[in-house]
Amino acid sequence: MASLRTVKGFRDFFPEECAMRNYIFDTWRSIARRYGFVEYEAPVVETTDLYRKKSGDEITSQLFCFKDKADREISLRPEVTPSLARMATTRHRDFKKPMKWFQIGSCFRYEEPQEGRTREFIQFNADILGDASSGTDAELIALSIDVMLAFGIQGEDFAIRLSNRELWTQYLEDQKVPAEHTATFLQIVDKIERAKPEETATKLAAIGLTLENVRAFMVAADENHPAFAALRADLTARGLWKIVRIDASIVRGLAYYTGTVFEVFDLKHGLRAVAGGGRYDKLCALMSDGSVDMPAAGFAMGDVVLGILLAKTPSAQLAITKYLNAQQGVDAYVVIADEAQRPHALAAVQALRVAGIRLDYSMAPQKVGKQFQAAESQKARFAIVFGAEYPEVQMKNLISREQSLIAADVLVSAVVEALKLPIVGPLLA
Amino acid sequence: MASLRTVKGFRDFFPEECAMRNYIFDTWRSIARRYGFVEYEAPVVETTDLYRKKSGDEITSQLFCFKDKADREISLRPEVTPSLARMATTRHRDFKKPMKWFQIGSCFRYEEPQEGRTREFIQFNADILGDASSGTDAELIALSIDVMLAFGIQGEDFAIRLSNRELWTQYLEDQKVPAEHTATFLQIVDKIERAKPEETATKLAAIGLTLENVRAFMVAADENHPAFAALRADLTARGLWKIVRIDASIVRGLAYYTGTVFEVFDLKHGLRAVAGGGRYDKLCALMSDGSVDMPAAGFAMGDVVLGILLAKTPSAQLAITKYLNAQQGVDAYVVIADEAQRPHALAAVQALRVAGIRLDYSMAPQKVGKQFQAAESQKARFAIVFGAEYPEVQMKNLISREQSLIAADVLVSAVVEALKLPIVGPLLA
Repeated sequence: MASLRTVKGFRDFFPEECAMRNYIFDTWRSIARRYGFVEYEAPVVETTDLYRKKSGDEITSQLFCFKDKADREISLRPEVTPSLARMATTRHRDFKKPMKWFQIGSCFRYEEPQEGRTREFIQFNADILGDASSGTDAELIALSIDVMLAFGIQGEDFAIRLSNRELWTQYLEDQKVPAEHTATFLQIVDKIERAKPEETATKLAAIGLTLENVRAFMVAADENHPAFAALRADLTARGLWKIVRIDASIVRGLAYYTGTVFEVFDLKHGLRAVAGGGRYDKLCALMSDGSVDMPAAGFAMGDVVLGILLAKTPSAQLAITKYLNAQQGVDAYVVIADEAQRPHALAAVQALRVAGIRLDYSMAPQKVGKQFQAAESQKARFAIVFGAEYPEVQMKNLISREQSLIAADVLVSAVVEALKLPIVGPLLA
Repeated sequence: MASLRTVKGFRDFFPEECAMRNYIFDTWRSIARRYGFVEYEAPVVETTDLYRKKSGDEITSQLFCFKDKADREISLRPEVTPSLARMATTRHRDFKKPMKWFQIGSCFRYEEPQEGRTREFIQFNADILGDASSGTDAELIALSIDVMLAFGIQGEDFAIRLSNRELWTQYLEDQKVPAEHTATFLQIVDKIERAKPEETATKLAAIGLTLENVRAFMVAADENHPAFAALRADLTARGLWKIVRIDASIVRGLAYYTGTVFEVFDLKHGLRAVAGGGRYDKLCALMSDGSVDMPAAGFAMGDVVLGILLAKTPSAQLAITKYLNAQQGVDAYVVIADEAQRPHALAAVQALRVAGIRLDYSMAPQKVGKQFQAAESQKARFAIVFGAEYPEVQMKNLISREQSLIAADVLVSAVVEALKLPIVGPLLA
């Protein structure tokens, strides 16, 4: 019976979960378009070399990587940025700069599943290529904030943790730490809030630093630091700076960030980061062996932590309920009270659907009571009854309980008109 | 540089292709909902056993199948029906019957790429579970027809090839061919239009049949055959029977079909089938080791052959153009003519987007002429210019070329109102 289970870390989306997924997709898409982003998609399978090129050989331990039947080394993508860099550098001449691109799709990581982490997850990626201005960083942070607000997460319930990698490169230079220790140092900082202080101190000592000194620098790096001046002016003008907190411990694990780095995180539930990103000005050059040198910045938001946060946030629920009500069910249900009328009913089913009406009916003969039950369970606003009165049909408003007899040949226009009316009756009571 | 290529048979979706993909998705989704179908999604990775259980060991030759790091045998899904059967049988008690479910997502087959066939492709699956009536088969065929019509494929440019597996089981019984030859026989029929007649005759002789006799039966099996009576009555009532052609050579390769089988194919370009499906009443029992016996029928439509057909069909192009125009570009573009006004411009950018307006602007300082070029290339209907006149701003209609000065504090309502007006001017000229 093993074949009747999903693979560990993978998810089924039954209709209810799929509707919730679509709500998340539609919200991401609608806010990204408001920001002038255009959608793209990359393959979920790429060469393993693509990820080695970006992240080195060690990355393969976290990859779903395989050999195909022709001995090609291929991987399920763990993230989309390498594919984006591949696509953008391959055809960069075809697109006006800056390129504001977004993407929504599955990614895969071979990690132990836990709360907020599955082996398959869906990411929203938003990236801007070909513009090195701090205004680009601000635009991305503003987008991440507006996405959260659009989900009904209140401005006081989440924050942007902001830093800049250059803070640390400058610090290391001032402290005369050789550049070859930069990566090691950033890994230490990345874990500084979670690791044991004595261990951190030992590691720092190995490269000639003290924990006290590093901590003092972190505290001093506040919003008045010149590295944040332009971003602060921009986001203040948008009224969004109040959601930003400077936090020099944010370096983002991935080695390729070069400047601004940020995370979106909730303030109430202590969840993992909802989104994260930053500036990666050297990645395009790296991926194209130096042939296309294009500044870039972006962020990714996953669906798993976001989904947990939405479930815990009452102010997010209203928008979800509205969306699900509008998406689910049908507008009308055709009830066949007399099987002799089925051909006429089928003709009406076809005509009503062609007019754009969402409609269901019983495909097999069925008792009238059962058909009305099905109409109710599918939240139909109207039942249209084909019975002995044909060529007249009964139209019942399932909310107000009003009913009327109408001629079958004006049925389509009658239903279209009726559906335009506001919903009244018990449903809203 | 191998890492800068897609894996063989996989596709990039640059913005233009992604918009086209979204058009196909939206059309599938909208017609399926009109028919009262609800959306689900299954994982793209499943246990290899799931496919072995359905199709036997040979299936693995066409699979992207691997062992993961824990030695699990996993596969990229080649189709969605096994996952659907797994999901539906696992939780069948939670859903009212019939279950009308649809799905849209990628599938993967390790086959040699050629025209109309890629290793990764996107399928639309529509299935009805828990209803054995011929009305179900009719509903699915009607859905496949309405999807084609919604894409702008005219009713005279495509057809449904319809058959019923029971025709052949009855024929074999009448001819006294033992039941163990049924699968072999259906494989012969499946290839009868393409294989050499002498080879087909030899194969048939091995199970005691002649090509003449089989061909005579195929010709005799027309729309008056009782196997089609109920379907014919139903689809005639909907006005859709004229699109159906009986073709007994259609058996569909997959072994699990039990009754009605059909294909959607174009009549003008000789492409591979656009969609195919049928009734598979025994699959749920097979997949659940007999614990859930549920009748089912469904069909799948791929995006690759469909995409080729749409590109070749002039009547399909108008709908595509309309969709792309509505999806692409922005409503308005904020032009910053005086950098001193950038903070005011950013405040307006934020307020306009919050009001739902799709809007772009130059994140870095830029010459005014370049900003207007960007506005045009993004098809903005309005440019909103922040310059020396602030707190008044210029609003330019980029289509009619009208312009007016308005107070910045009423900008949002002015733009919202202006966007409600019909588009007039050179764009439509």
